[in-house]
Amino acid sequence: MSDQLERLNRLPLRENLRGLEPYGAPQLHVPILLNVNENTHGMPEKVHAAIVAAVDGVVSGLNRYPDREFTQLREALASYLGHGLSAGNIWAANGSNEVLQQILQAFGGPGRRLLSFPPTYSMYPLLASGTDTEYVAARRGADFSLTAEAAAAAVTASQANIVFLCSPNNPTGTALGMDVIEAVYEAGAAQNAVVVVDEAYAEFAHAGTPSALTLLPGRERLIVSRTMSKAFALAGARLGYLAAAPEIADALRLVRLPYHLSAVTQATALAALEHSDALLANVEDIKGQRDRIVAELTALGLTPAPSDSNFVFFGGLKDPHAVWQGLLDAGVLIRDVGIPGHLRVTAGTEAETSAFLDRIRELASSGVF
Amino acid sequence: MSDQLERLNRLPLRENLRGLEPYGAPQLHVPILLNVNENTHGMPEKVHAAIVAAVDGVVSGLNRYPDREFTQLREALASYLGHGLSAGNIWAANGSNEVLQQILQAFGGPGRRLLSFPPTYSMYPLLASGTDTEYVAARRGADFSLTAEAAAAAVTASQANIVFLCSPNNPTGTALGMDVIEAVYEAGAAQNAVVVVDEAYAEFAHAGTPSALTLLPGRERLIVSRTMSKAFALAGARLGYLAAAPEIADALRLVRLPYHLSAVTQATALAALEHSDALLANVEDIKGQRDRIVAELTALGLTPAPSDSNFVFFGGLKDPHAVWQGLLDAGVLIRDVGIPGHLRVTAGTEAETSAFLDRIRELASSGVF
Repeated sequence: MSDQLERLNRLPLRENLRGLEPYGAPQLHVPILLNVNENTHGMPEKVHAAIVAAVDGVVSGLNRYPDREFTQLREALASYLGHGLSAGNIWAANGSNEVLQQILQAFGGPGRRLLSFPPTYSMYPLLASGTDTEYVAARRGADFSLTAEAAAAAVTASQANIVFLCSPNNPTGTALGMDVIEAVYEAGAAQNAVVVVDEAYAEFAHAGTPSALTLLPGRERLIVSRTMSKAFALAGARLGYLAAAPEIADALRLVRLPYHLSAVTQATALAALEHSDALLANVEDIKGQRDRIVAELTALGLTPAPSDSNFVFFGGLKDPHAVWQGLLDAGVLIRDVGIPGHLRVTAGTEAETSAFLDRIRELASSGVF
Repeated sequence: MSDQLERLNRLPLRENLRGLEPYGAPQLHVPILLNVNENTHGMPEKVHAAIVAAVDGVVSGLNRYPDREFTQLREALASYLGHGLSAGNIWAANGSNEVLQQILQAFGGPGRRLLSFPPTYSMYPLLASGTDTEYVAARRGADFSLTAEAAAAAVTASQANIVFLCSPNNPTGTALGMDVIEAVYEAGAAQNAVVVVDEAYAEFAHAGTPSALTLLPGRERLIVSRTMSKAFALAGARLGYLAAAPEIADALRLVRLPYHLSAVTQATALAALEHSDALLANVEDIKGQRDRIVAELTALGLTPAPSDSNFVFFGGLKDPHAVWQGLLDAGVLIRDVGIPGHLRVTAGTEAETSAFLDRIRELASSGVF
């Protein structure tokens, strides 16, 4: 054991943290980074200029605490989402991880239970543990699918207080049918459960894929979580948000730290929202690269899952680690999410996607699969 | 009960949140805001320009997640603090509220106990509640002082796992002697307690006032918390930080949300740190205004507490609410912190401070005291 680890173990850490490692993908310096589902298309020049101008506009007021209610930002997010939503329906925080943490602080905690359906976003159990909420995992089908019937049965069997559904799901990429969400909400009604649909990747879904936003009317315990990290190319700016009944936002006001959203974050997000057209144009290109990956991996005999996101989860690999390493050796970093036979790759720019596909074709012909 | 409150009460809120109101001082639109201890001197022009340039430099990379370890910022904070500290000793988050919340997530929680000494920063019990840590209050002397003996006895009696000491204390303004901190740490050693000294206002202390940073060597459970909200005039940018043994930062890495500190926040804070000279020059002026308030309130027969901060807590008021209202009627907002006979005022610019003092002299001569 290293000296520093020994010193850490002498501290009065909470028991459920002992022996853990900090969460996070390796931050390696590699030319082509397709490992954490970032938007690799970067920031259009006019959005860049708008963000800098917006920040310039707030710097002289940074000596003051920010608007604790971030009203202008909530208005802009509501207007972006549409579906008849207004500022009262919106809440936001520093990344959707913080939004989800606040939901668990309000509705979870000791004696309460969070249900989710792995393989799914790996932060869910960590957020549960960080708020002393019990985490219950219900498995998906062998093909990682989730039916309305199975999901509803798991809700009842678990007696969960909160359910997290990820749609499109990370790491598998597939969106849930509205029937699954409706069934989960209905099954949860008996136990007054809060149902969160994490739509971090919603903007990348195939045309015609409905959003859980359509289900909000009349469902006061349904929450749809979104982020500006992916479609809006703002992973570095940390802005997650949600849409729900206004009383959900009121509940989160009881647990949020006062002034949790900086004036600079508010200005940055507002400027990007004013240029959503330019940013969503890049989304269309990313969807094209994503579909190209699915088609080419299929042609190589691999089994990519249908993807409504900006990444592709693919199976059929005898030795995923060798493939991951073979890509890394060529300067392409993708993600081993720890599921046997599978890897996950983010759709990059056309050039990045080509580099990935070229290399994986080489690996296929060299017999690494 | 309003409809919205009724709907909130139907949600499955945690029991300890029922009936609460969101925390926060009223955000009123008043010409002279001396209520939340902001730095009213604003941002020097060259710091403004440096912040905008720094943000400009990171916008093109905002599509990527930020440096999860914010190494450059930790290096700059260590270098600013001095005392032989290096990046490994530093941790930061979105405001010192988040730093303190992370400390409670790592070392507090169900079955654990936080001790503090009211009247003190009113977020402490809320942070305890938000992390299901039991909050224990030990009272100060009648003059709000705290002796080493009384503090150490409270530590032992409470069997606290964590102790928060605020120095200079908010709302009373006075710094603790190093003997108090040493005694608390020593008493806490028997129960392996973590001791946090919240030095949010340290830069405003009178010359020669020692910082708890001097006590860090050899005390692996001592944490000194700081903020850029006050001396650095960055309340709107949300940057709190701490100095401690490196294993304390390791413990917080287990509970922080990944990428909690945005690239924009990191750039803003770094730019301000590069201009600490200009910002600390304003601190000297604020200290002058603070001392002027103490002197003039004393001359009016009031009893201001000795202040090492950018605010003055003063007693001797028969009807504090009438004084608060009388000031507000003249466009000067100060803070009623709920302590009988007392109010708190932030030291503003020379003109703001004069407006406050002129009005309070009028109120004195009209017999409101």
